[in-house]
Amino acid sequence: MALDIAVVGIGVTPVLKASSDSLRKLGAEVIRSALTDAGLERVDAIYVGNMLADEIPGQKHVAALLASEAGLSGVEALQVRAATASGAAALRVACLAVASGQVELAMAAGLELMGAGPPPTHTLALALDAEREVPEGLTLVGASAYLMSLYLDRYNVRYEDFANFAVNAHRNAAGNPHALFRSPVDVDKVLNSRLIVPPLRLYDCSPICDGAAAVIVCRGDRAHHFQQEPVRILASAVATDRFVVRDRSDPLALEACQITSARAYEQAGMTAQDVDFFELHDAFSIMACLQLEASGFARRGEGWRLAAEGEIFREGRLPICTMGGLKARGHPIGASALYQVAEIVMQMRGQAGANQLARTGTAMTHSIGGAGTTILTHILAR
Amino acid sequence: MALDIAVVGIGVTPVLKASSDSLRKLGAEVIRSALTDAGLERVDAIYVGNMLADEIPGQKHVAALLASEAGLSGVEALQVRAATASGAAALRVACLAVASGQVELAMAAGLELMGAGPPPTHTLALALDAEREVPEGLTLVGASAYLMSLYLDRYNVRYEDFANFAVNAHRNAAGNPHALFRSPVDVDKVLNSRLIVPPLRLYDCSPICDGAAAVIVCRGDRAHHFQQEPVRILASAVATDRFVVRDRSDPLALEACQITSARAYEQAGMTAQDVDFFELHDAFSIMACLQLEASGFARRGEGWRLAAEGEIFREGRLPICTMGGLKARGHPIGASALYQVAEIVMQMRGQAGANQLARTGTAMTHSIGGAGTTILTHILAR
Repeated sequence: MALDIAVVGIGVTPVLKASSDSLRKLGAEVIRSALTDAGLERVDAIYVGNMLADEIPGQKHVAALLASEAGLSGVEALQVRAATASGAAALRVACLAVASGQVELAMAAGLELMGAGPPPTHTLALALDAEREVPEGLTLVGASAYLMSLYLDRYNVRYEDFANFAVNAHRNAAGNPHALFRSPVDVDKVLNSRLIVPPLRLYDCSPICDGAAAVIVCRGDRAHHFQQEPVRILASAVATDRFVVRDRSDPLALEACQITSARAYEQAGMTAQDVDFFELHDAFSIMACLQLEASGFARRGEGWRLAAEGEIFREGRLPICTMGGLKARGHPIGASALYQVAEIVMQMRGQAGANQLARTGTAMTHSIGGAGTTILTHILAR
Repeated sequence: MALDIAVVGIGVTPVLKASSDSLRKLGAEVIRSALTDAGLERVDAIYVGNMLADEIPGQKHVAALLASEAGLSGVEALQVRAATASGAAALRVACLAVASGQVELAMAAGLELMGAGPPPTHTLALALDAEREVPEGLTLVGASAYLMSLYLDRYNVRYEDFANFAVNAHRNAAGNPHALFRSPVDVDKVLNSRLIVPPLRLYDCSPICDGAAAVIVCRGDRAHHFQQEPVRILASAVATDRFVVRDRSDPLALEACQITSARAYEQAGMTAQDVDFFELHDAFSIMACLQLEASGFARRGEGWRLAAEGEIFREGRLPICTMGGLKARGHPIGASALYQVAEIVMQMRGQAGANQLARTGTAMTHSIGGAGTTILTHILAR
């Protein structure tokens, strides 16, 4: 069934290595920022995406805390999670709420604070199977390294063919005022960066960092009541794969992504050929490659070609990560998908500054929970 | 806007002090149990309510894990949270999903494992403000003790006037095969039980325990396709209060509960007088009393009278906690609200056994996150 939702407000905070704000301050700031952008005093519901607040700082009732701190007590407020895709999960629920007619104005607000202390590598690994994968030493980085080595071996691809994923991300982040990394990198720098978990090197991996982003949605037929030019959400889909990576018949197929892409194209009445740009979940360069294949932009085993041949650059056939992506804008987990959506809206409003694309009619975005386990897809259009 | 949702399947596991099942096994069991009850092989989406899996056993991607373990990989699966009201939060999203037309069959599945180790008192306290309340020594028990002493003092009520909340709960649990506590208690036993946090005694407090419950919903006009006599959900509402209890102008007003009750009555086109029985959130006896007042069943300062005068018993004017409530059926946090809904459905189907009520036309249920911070209300009818 087709969706008729519009984004009427966005808010982002600068992605930082470590924010000096507390969870409540950062959350209230991004909520107020999105309200201001929309010209609103309040919304009817806030759905919060966050993965790590239970541990950092140690808070298990995040949505009500943020609503109260933003001066919106009374409002409906719930937290929604799908591990590293929690921001997209919050947007999914905001879309359902608005489409149901039960909620007129809904905000999806995502945030994460994880940069100040030691890297929360073990906590992040709990997106994987804590009984069957984590005890064997698997982490999110390790699972991605496993997928990449499978890929290089099966398709006989060279590691260096992936380098442009990082080059593109850093180039685009350099032109994005809210990005974490503002310096371009070249292929040599990527290839000579230190090994993290072989074959992954530093520039294949997104950073641990802090940030918050929010999006306000309403029904499409109500969108003209608000001050911003609305951007439509044409499709919203969620699917899950077998939880344990090695249980999947083909871990490189990214089946949940195939399912959500197909559902989203059907909802939107379009195909991959109609997508002008693509904000995908490049937590690791191999994941970017696999999403290009699972979503119909490349044949199996050939997703890397779009990078190697420069098609993913802003001038290419399918620009991806146009504001730096998870890799270089940064990946504050629960906020990342909402940065992606806010950036799509900036592109479509003509507010993308140095990174402004020429063609911004239609965009797709993916968010991934775990190692391809939960995938959420949204398609937006002007 | 009125809701048109139907419950077409329910599942519950026995509430136990400590289950021998793992999170994945318990979750898969309750999912399959609800599918069997509905005569279904699968649903289109599963929304999972859980509060503590991050710590017990240590898993941050619960919804996808349970979907996969139940053999439903591919399905939409997200976790929804509102601290101790997380099960109701999952039901709220299931209702929104179905009402949106985007999801045909949705399951809300809640579960919690917390009985095996030391009581997770500190972790549960993170439903309160971890910066402003917890460091001062407040816990969920402490916050309820604070509210009860305010109440006794302001309204000049005696502690013993609350005893029937526990007596009713244990009497009803005795007739409920899936309840944790199966022995009735009398007023003397309640009054002489040990002090926990004054003025709260043992029998004012719900137990730490394990359990899982699930509910399958679809649009009302589709409900006749399934094998069970459907039970309708007429209303679903969520509201939040100021996060810090002492910031509220009147902590005994339970403002979020006033808001959700009013919204729910409006959605259902009814008043408190139309409610035949009430599955409220009796995590502490004072909370039961405050909900009776905030929902229009008693004047402020007089909620205790419905207990003292026996109106809350199964033979009374407003039976509450008819299968034992959180107090005696047990309060496996993320599952509790879904036990409440499943028990309402059992009453309405005539499956409540020894506890079967005569009048089961309309029922209300509340679930509370934190100390009155997030409140969810659902109204069901035959």
